[in-house]
Amino acid sequence: MELTLVGIGTGNPGHLTLQAVEAIRAADILLIPDKGEDKQELADLRRSIAAGCVGKDDARLVTFPMPGRDPGVPDYKRRVQLWHDAIAQAWLDALAPFAGVRKVALLVWGDPALFDSTLRIAERIAKARPLDLKVVPGLTSLQVLAASHAIPLNRLAQPFLVTTGRHLRTHGWPAGIDTLVVMLDGESSFSTLDPAGISIWWGAYVGMEGEILDHGPLSEAGPRITRARAEARARRGWIMDIYLLRREGSGASAP
Amino acid sequence: MELTLVGIGTGNPGHLTLQAVEAIRAADILLIPDKGEDKQELADLRRSIAAGCVGKDDARLVTFPMPGRDPGVPDYKRRVQLWHDAIAQAWLDALAPFAGVRKVALLVWGDPALFDSTLRIAERIAKARPLDLKVVPGLTSLQVLAASHAIPLNRLAQPFLVTTGRHLRTHGWPAGIDTLVVMLDGESSFSTLDPAGISIWWGAYVGMEGEILDHGPLSEAGPRITRARAEARARRGWIMDIYLLRREGSGASAP
Repeated sequence: MELTLVGIGTGNPGHLTLQAVEAIRAADILLIPDKGEDKQELADLRRSIAAGCVGKDDARLVTFPMPGRDPGVPDYKRRVQLWHDAIAQAWLDALAPFAGVRKVALLVWGDPALFDSTLRIAERIAKARPLDLKVVPGLTSLQVLAASHAIPLNRLAQPFLVTTGRHLRTHGWPAGIDTLVVMLDGESSFSTLDPAGISIWWGAYVGMEGEILDHGPLSEAGPRITRARAEARARRGWIMDIYLLRREGSGASAP
Repeated sequence: MELTLVGIGTGNPGHLTLQAVEAIRAADILLIPDKGEDKQELADLRRSIAAGCVGKDDARLVTFPMPGRDPGVPDYKRRVQLWHDAIAQAWLDALAPFAGVRKVALLVWGDPALFDSTLRIAERIAKARPLDLKVVPGLTSLQVLAASHAIPLNRLAQPFLVTTGRHLRTHGWPAGIDTLVVMLDGESSFSTLDPAGISIWWGAYVGMEGEILDHGPLSEAGPRITRARAEARARRGWIMDIYLLRREGSGASAP
């Protein structure tokens, strides 16, 4: 079986690459997670992106029930490992009736390489059956954030760190780095920092309908973003957001 | 004037997003740098990607001579600043005969946000004339590297640093981070590291014709890559490459 993980960008059909369109068209089956009512808007959006490539060919869309994480497992990493095992089993169960099918594609928000579990789950499948694994990269929210603000990610010739809200909260600002891009942050972790000399560029629903952007010195923009985030989440029922933090005046930095 | 910086990916026409195709089609003029004979293959590839979107409409392609950096300016950052000033002037000169034109697009390898000067040059244009600046993100070599190797960029819930060969050479491996993606490295800077416990995933011409991949423990793969790099560069006349380094066994890391 050939399994292609197709990055589809951040919810704008225009984010699809020509390569991604071709991979979706070429697939015999599109594997689609069913996450229940939660984030139904995102599930609908994914279906409409798939349908935009293959037409109204619902026979090719094969859904599988998305398992939840087991809150009874106390260790974070162990809990995630078991969850990935369960998702791999759900894929195998969903594909079981289609033994003769050659090409399966799975649509992934953003890019399969970036803070996404799909590659780790596919590795489990490869242990259960022969698998030709392919990846089609897709636009990530960090690129779309930068494009929407029309800013570079890095300062001239300087590095940047791509990190998570949890990591920022537990480890603070790493030494010697002036730019952080923070993903997966449900807790406004920027508010744990001393805001002096830090600027923030924030975006929610980047690239898709209802995009919200804000930026400014963290001391002023931070509280504003925390409020906007809570309001947007309440209004829409869910939120996906991302931000870039830049520290001014460090010796290593250039304009 | 509306200026759209269009990320076009890493040299595979399939990397274009639907948004990028649309932006190129909508432009009245495509601004194209003429870098002389150097990297003529890349210039030809860019023209063919543009032509794939707009047809054989050469009238819309406006070239400008790409200025070189002034080796007489000793300070690196000052030299780059002056170079960006010169490029901005070259854009303005090239556009001068087209005063009535509304939409200009400029094709950028990879993504305009990532180790690219175009946004900084556009800021200079914005000081000279009213400018509506838009950015269309594109696939970057780091995503294409990860896709070609079918590996995630980050370890589970862990950050990664996107950096340069120069920075790695001068600052070494940063504390507390187990994954580095190194761009713009003409000097095999990985060879300055103690290779114990480090693995490398390397790619040249990623995503395009003639892609070369290698990976393994740095102690074994490093010298092999240095040789392959020199051979490929000699054969093709130029090289663009990128690599990911992962340190095993650090306390913070997960599989």
